[in-house]
Amino acid sequence: MSAETQELTRLANTVRMLSIDGVQQANSGHPGLPLGAADLATVVWAEFLRFSPQDPGWLGRDRFVLSAGHGSMLLYSLLHLFQYDLPLSELKNFRQWQSKTPGHPEFEHTVGVECTTGPLGQGFANGVGIALSEKMLAARYSEELFGNRVYGIVSDGDLMEGITSEAASLAGHLALGNLIYLYDDNKISLADKTDICFTENVAERFLSYGWHVQSIDGHDIGAIRGAVQAAVDERSKPSLICARTIIGKGSPNKAGTSDVHGSPLGEKELNLTKAAYGWPEEPRFLIPEDVSAFCSEIIQQKNESHQQWKANFEKWSSANSEKAKALQAQTSRALPPSLKGELLSALEPVKSAATRNLSGSAIQLLAKSLPGFVGGSADLEPSNKTLIKDSGNVLSGSFGEKNIRFGVREHAMGAIVNGMAYQQCWFPYAATFLVFSDYVRPAIRLAALSHLQSLFIFTHDSFWVGEDGPTHEPIEQIASLRLIPNLYVFRPADGLEVAMSYIGALQMHDRPSALLFTRQDLPSLERGTQFQPEDVLRGAYIVAQPEVTDCVMVATGSEVSLACEVAKLLASEGTRVRVVSMPCVELFLELSPEEREEIVPISAKRISLEAGVTTGWERVVGSTGLSIGVNHYGASAPGEVLAEKFGFTPELVKNRVQAFLSSGR
Amino acid sequence: MSAETQELTRLANTVRMLSIDGVQQANSGHPGLPLGAADLATVVWAEFLRFSPQDPGWLGRDRFVLSAGHGSMLLYSLLHLFQYDLPLSELKNFRQWQSKTPGHPEFEHTVGVECTTGPLGQGFANGVGIALSEKMLAARYSEELFGNRVYGIVSDGDLMEGITSEAASLAGHLALGNLIYLYDDNKISLADKTDICFTENVAERFLSYGWHVQSIDGHDIGAIRGAVQAAVDERSKPSLICARTIIGKGSPNKAGTSDVHGSPLGEKELNLTKAAYGWPEEPRFLIPEDVSAFCSEIIQQKNESHQQWKANFEKWSSANSEKAKALQAQTSRALPPSLKGELLSALEPVKSAATRNLSGSAIQLLAKSLPGFVGGSADLEPSNKTLIKDSGNVLSGSFGEKNIRFGVREHAMGAIVNGMAYQQCWFPYAATFLVFSDYVRPAIRLAALSHLQSLFIFTHDSFWVGEDGPTHEPIEQIASLRLIPNLYVFRPADGLEVAMSYIGALQMHDRPSALLFTRQDLPSLERGTQFQPEDVLRGAYIVAQPEVTDCVMVATGSEVSLACEVAKLLASEGTRVRVVSMPCVELFLELSPEEREEIVPISAKRISLEAGVTTGWERVVGSTGLSIGVNHYGASAPGEVLAEKFGFTPELVKNRVQAFLSSGR
Repeated sequence: MSAETQELTRLANTVRMLSIDGVQQANSGHPGLPLGAADLATVVWAEFLRFSPQDPGWLGRDRFVLSAGHGSMLLYSLLHLFQYDLPLSELKNFRQWQSKTPGHPEFEHTVGVECTTGPLGQGFANGVGIALSEKMLAARYSEELFGNRVYGIVSDGDLMEGITSEAASLAGHLALGNLIYLYDDNKISLADKTDICFTENVAERFLSYGWHVQSIDGHDIGAIRGAVQAAVDERSKPSLICARTIIGKGSPNKAGTSDVHGSPLGEKELNLTKAAYGWPEEPRFLIPEDVSAFCSEIIQQKNESHQQWKANFEKWSSANSEKAKALQAQTSRALPPSLKGELLSALEPVKSAATRNLSGSAIQLLAKSLPGFVGGSADLEPSNKTLIKDSGNVLSGSFGEKNIRFGVREHAMGAIVNGMAYQQCWFPYAATFLVFSDYVRPAIRLAALSHLQSLFIFTHDSFWVGEDGPTHEPIEQIASLRLIPNLYVFRPADGLEVAMSYIGALQMHDRPSALLFTRQDLPSLERGTQFQPEDVLRGAYIVAQPEVTDCVMVATGSEVSLACEVAKLLASEGTRVRVVSMPCVELFLELSPEEREEIVPISAKRISLEAGVTTGWERVVGSTGLSIGVNHYGASAPGEVLAEKFGFTPELVKNRVQAFLSSGR
Repeated sequence: MSAETQELTRLANTVRMLSIDGVQQANSGHPGLPLGAADLATVVWAEFLRFSPQDPGWLGRDRFVLSAGHGSMLLYSLLHLFQYDLPLSELKNFRQWQSKTPGHPEFEHTVGVECTTGPLGQGFANGVGIALSEKMLAARYSEELFGNRVYGIVSDGDLMEGITSEAASLAGHLALGNLIYLYDDNKISLADKTDICFTENVAERFLSYGWHVQSIDGHDIGAIRGAVQAAVDERSKPSLICARTIIGKGSPNKAGTSDVHGSPLGEKELNLTKAAYGWPEEPRFLIPEDVSAFCSEIIQQKNESHQQWKANFEKWSSANSEKAKALQAQTSRALPPSLKGELLSALEPVKSAATRNLSGSAIQLLAKSLPGFVGGSADLEPSNKTLIKDSGNVLSGSFGEKNIRFGVREHAMGAIVNGMAYQQCWFPYAATFLVFSDYVRPAIRLAALSHLQSLFIFTHDSFWVGEDGPTHEPIEQIASLRLIPNLYVFRPADGLEVAMSYIGALQMHDRPSALLFTRQDLPSLERGTQFQPEDVLRGAYIVAQPEVTDCVMVATGSEVSLACEVAKLLASEGTRVRVVSMPCVELFLELSPEEREEIVPISAKRISLEAGVTTGWERVVGSTGLSIGVNHYGASAPGEVLAEKFGFTPELVKNRVQAFLSSGR
């Protein structure tokens, strides 16, 4: 064994021992992965990964994605050993309240954690998004400074997930040569041996996607080094290194079994394991001095590379001031002051249009104004109206373009957009039909949990889809998106609201938004003279009949113009209705009680009108209010017919309102 | 061209013309697939598929799955031509209100439609479930009578979806030799040419899963016939036939482009297309007499095979009366009268247990009593407690077993279980952590839409998961499942409620249930003498303090015992609280207002207590009620610590109740 390899092995063993000590101390966690994958991770971190613990947000860094997030102690141990701001006390506090070392790695919670992982497959797809983002930055600014690599550790669980297949196929298509995944192939899953359910030929599968595939012994430092180097050298394909490992390696009684996957070793087995590694039982959390010194040496080198990059960056900035300015603008995610006016001018005058078309117009404008506004649809570009017309497709050789063609891969689309959002320099968007937001949901949740500015564009937002029938008509989706904490759901009613919804979504850098648009045409609203476009960003505002007399009708999206029609019919019969448009319920509910009261007085008879399930509207109209919605699946027929059948014509709504008002509730 | 091939071609062209006429008449729909895939489907239906239009539920039939459900007119045309009860008037009424020909095929809505398809990938995975079901029936009863084949047409969109990858990997693992998919490889998707996003080698990918793969010209009748025959002959592997086709074949100006995917041809192009096929422009919906006669001949043969099977079945039944009785029991899905008592006896006496463990005990008992009770988990068997102990794993060679090891493939698991549920002779269950119900959601929706008795078991149902942290702690999932129409969500509080929740779920043959269980131990409840176990199936009942005095506290699952503790604390301070357990909100809301009033009086001060988002609870406690829940993401710490931090200890809840009661709301 060379001296270098000996040092690496000591470092890997230190990672192992810290990890099992952390899990034991918490009496909770996953020792199997750190024991099994420490050699893989250590080689990558020590010899390949570009990073700077003093400058963790360094634009020129590589990224490490622990897709198998349950092995979090592996990552925390590496972060500590490599001098990130994660003191040993935090490792000792693994999985405890407010520690920096939660059960699964969380972005922004722990410095050096590049993405939140744990739900299997998400990290794999996030890494594809990060690698793509780097390629897109390189094409825009500098091939030398960007196009940094993504290294990751993925598990059998990751590889079984469908989202991974989607992302891998797209990564192969895009020829992301800066993506390198090490497959911790230990043949053991949580429940059992993997061969009870997973006997496909993984290497062949990834070859079929166009990946560069190698197979190695995952405990042979030299083999790991060679394979990672070969993956680095292969610049035209993403790489999968299938590394045969032993889960829980070194645990005399548990290695190679699923017992070691997700439970602490126990005191006795912990000590036996330490003995097997020639490690002292005490003290726990031991970091031998030689290992510290070795890490310092490595960091020294990494810092030099960091300084070199910064010098190169300065040189490049001077020589390319326009580009440097654009990069600065992109990374700030600031909106040009003129943007709102431009959007409003473009969209407000449109007298009748589907909001998906208005969104399409907004997208053209945003793509011109914001260098980071990029994205695409899951093969529904013509329906979602998301194609940026003055750009081509993002492809190998044309990463400078803006249209990402995700294919029919909704779940990976969401996670890839999240991957780009982790880079904090894009306004990345993903689009599909609203009903298929269900396919994207796990990724939407992670965007919200991780405070990512991912934009989810969902068109065809009600039964008005019509003939495609119940499989394609969202019913519970508007309400179910509103349940996700930190997600803001916009359902604009016309051009002005579409413009302001985009402004709202673009201004919120620390949360995702869902933007819901219609397939069918809507008229533009007539608003009172008091109205200001910014009112949209309060979540709700009064559209018509400011004086509350007989009742308040709150509606969203396509139902706002319907509510206005109903109000006109009722007015002609002597009933006066205040119509409130509520494009974003979350923003409305954030208002003070007094502000809410000004718009929807609690004492008023209140009605909600939305083409979806009514659950949740009690928060706005109270339990004595009337919620008009659709609490059953849709049907296949022209939209106008369904409106008639489901009670969404002016006349039918009017009748229900009258019955409600006369019921004396 | 042989006479046979000529007749088949005429039949395929009739399917084409009926399909484009239907789409044109509706002025909505997808002509591209029927024009492109008619040759494939016609060969399968005419020469291979076993069915009987007079006996559409025939147990011995093969199944045809149109995974690319947007090509529905292809299927409707075939059903009509092959004498199913689908008159021509229905084809003329395509996509209209209450027609039998909705935009996408719907199970039970149209005779002969084996599963609801449209959301891409679902049909592919349903077919895997159906094929598996047939193998499992064959192993249990008769290899000769069962093990029927599933034929399907799948599109590039299906193959891009992750759910398909998951299902394909598992189908290969299980060596489902009775599964034959024809891949309509037309190189065109909705938006564009597929090569903008989909350049993987599909054939190689399926080989890596262990499939039998062939590649043919999808318009060469002889080649199709040969490939399907080879697929039939290959009994140890599922088959993919990659058939190169031309989308919209025969449309002079639109064939081979995405224009023909999802829009009617238009009158002019329709006529040009008919001319290209040598077809008269008028009448529309023409079925030439020779084609009718050919279909009758085919049906004649199919009927003979049907009669033969029935005779064989009779013979088998006489010779295997025990098995025949068991089969009858299985297909009836009747519950033995003793089952409820047995379940209650087993679970009720348990004084303290996690409901996941109680569910585990229930599963052992159900597997003994119900021949159709089979299923599994997405690699979380030890955590979900779903393994049937006295059974082995379902595998090629052991299809008689009961444990299906799905691997980390939640989405396909849901759709495969749905596929089994389509067979209407199983109680198939799927299990994972509640937080990962998001991964299964599109399949849950289709189960509900299609009235399938799929059982979704979700354990680890709150922040009490603890150390695994926010990625693994459900917050919005309980509420979001409740939003799905036709889905019943059970969250039992102890052994008795677990038993009755299973009874409830098993009794409802026309809808899916979600069963939510805890990771942590719960005490068994002390109930009043008036209580009957059947009260659980009213959705809610009074646990303690029947007289409403100061307030009613409604809780579910793990929060019911907490509510009881709070009530005791409050009682000691002079405040009397009625505790209501509400294991199934949907069932409660189905009660009459009078029945609901008996349990939760509207005039009472009402409080809800549930470890999840509070949205939706207004329906029960009103807008002046107090909803105690968790409206933010969880955290990583021991469950007891989180309970303290999130306000879920008896003392903290008591304080909130007291503040609420004294606020005078």
